[in-house]
Amino acid sequence: MSRRRQIYEGKAKILYEGPEPGTIIQYFKDDATAFNAQKKGTISGKGVLNNRISEHIFTLLGQIGIPTHFIRRLNMREQLVRQVEIIPVEVVIRNVAAGSISKRLGIEEGTALPRTILEYYYKDDALGDPMITDEHIACFGWASQEEMHDVADMAIRINDFMCGLFAGVGIRLIDFKLEFGRLWDGDYSRVILADEISPDGCRLWDSTTNEKLDKDRFRQDLGGEVEAYQEVARRFGLLPEGSV
Amino acid sequence: MSRRRQIYEGKAKILYEGPEPGTIIQYFKDDATAFNAQKKGTISGKGVLNNRISEHIFTLLGQIGIPTHFIRRLNMREQLVRQVEIIPVEVVIRNVAAGSISKRLGIEEGTALPRTILEYYYKDDALGDPMITDEHIACFGWASQEEMHDVADMAIRINDFMCGLFAGVGIRLIDFKLEFGRLWDGDYSRVILADEISPDGCRLWDSTTNEKLDKDRFRQDLGGEVEAYQEVARRFGLLPEGSV
Ligand SMILES: Nc1ncnc2c1ncn2[C@@H]1O[C@H](COP(=O)(O)OP(=O)(O)O)[C@@H](O)[C@H]1O
Ligand SMILES: Nc1ncnc2c1ncn2[C@@H]1O[C@H](COP(=O)(O)OP(=O)(O)O)[C@@H](O)[C@H]1O
Ligand SMILES: [Mg+2]
Ligand SMILES: [Mg+2]
Repeated sequence: MSRRRQIYEGKAKILYEGPEPGTIIQYFKDDATAFNAQKKGTISGKGVLNNRISEHIFTLLGQIGIPTHFIRRLNMREQLVRQVEIIPVEVVIRNVAAGSISKRLGIEEGTALPRTILEYYYKDDALGDPMITDEHIACFGWASQEEMHDVADMAIRINDFMCGLFAGVGIRLIDFKLEFGRLWDGDYSRVILADEISPDGCRLWDSTTNEKLDKDRFRQDLGGEVEAYQEVARRFGLLPEGSV
Repeated sequence: MSRRRQIYEGKAKILYEGPEPGTIIQYFKDDATAFNAQKKGTISGKGVLNNRISEHIFTLLGQIGIPTHFIRRLNMREQLVRQVEIIPVEVVIRNVAAGSISKRLGIEEGTALPRTILEYYYKDDALGDPMITDEHIACFGWASQEEMHDVADMAIRINDFMCGLFAGVGIRLIDFKLEFGRLWDGDYSRVILADEISPDGCRLWDSTTNEKLDKDRFRQDLGGEVEAYQEVARRFGLLPEGSV
């Protein structure tokens, strides 16, 4: 563990070289950032919970035929994944208005959207992840039209599945962010789901109380961050019985 | 003239009831605004020039089969147009990076875009005209998919024509904004080009010197605003010979 090469350290995870070519290890940190990393903090235990929650969701998505980078969880904070060439487009799927769309379009937070909205953001911290469209993606070659077609199809399927998954445990899936990457096989590549799915990148509201069970607790200084992440894990049955 | 009813006063134009049902009069003011009306001023003579330039371009677009609201110019500052239900989506067509796209995506101003980019902005001054996509337009019903299909088709044709038109008089069409509206005929409506096309809503650079011949002179306090608008009119042969 001590000798392996670090590939990248991001805001929430560290990537290490994996045990065989084409694999990497995602190490989940407790670091939390918000507002394009202007706000920084630590949520003690978050990394462990996100590793577990993301494993759970990626495994289930694999079972409905969504290709993902996930191979297996290695330990409390690490998972082995297939290395991909990340497409620099963050995909946001919104079912209910909250966060930036509420502010930008003047829609009260909590308003159910008449239909699900797919948004794209250019993954570039220095630029503050600006919103983009298929037009910019095609113009600058960030992904091909075929790739974006696959991305949109997968995003919609993932949303349907996850809405159900969360509804089953009394949680409304307000919105969430996905990242995709290219898996190369010789001269060909296909797009698979990468990164993580966790309360860091989802808005999750308790179906009954509307309590926020996600990173907005950190963004808005609501307190109880780790308890919220734990509650999500607990509802999925991911915490040992009797644990906090 | 004194008795007619004013329908709306905007940032650059006043709309009056027209002489017959379904028509309105656009009166072009000298008022100039920028940065979502945070900057205000007057460009003396601008209204006269924009009325003339917009007439010229709308007439030529009509001749290549673009349906427009333009009927005829009435006098120095006024033109008679068909009244439409404005689609609250500003369409921006970009050939070269400048303005907001340069800042948002970190592309140096003046960089030719690998391909033309179509952007949509929600026409709402209070919200600062936020960028939107087909997703938001469909979600909130601001226009139908068929309408947006027609809008995009027309925008691309208009861009091709206008690139040629300006190239013919030694000007590069960097980017420009269009507005479209619904013309109702009983229960049916079709989309036609509305509003104006003038140096207020276009970026126009001299092909040789790169001198700005548009509202950026006002935005950036470059001086010579009216002379720039006059130069555009002059190159189109719209100023009487020997006039300023
Ligand atoms: N399978 C993968 N292969 C390569 N890179 C990945 C993979 N999955 C995620 N990544 C990238 O690894 C980084 C994960 O660390 P993170 O802390 O989320 O970084 P960031 O601050 O860039 O969001 C991200 O940049 C993400 O795009
Ligand atoms: N044919 C038309 N019928 C109805 N409204 C129009 C037509 N053409 C343009 N408009 C609208 O008239 C207004 C023109 O005035 P302007 O000063 O440009 O207003 P604004 O400050 O809203 O941009 C705009 O709101 C524009 O959308
Ligand atoms: Mg990340
Ligand atoms: Mg206007």
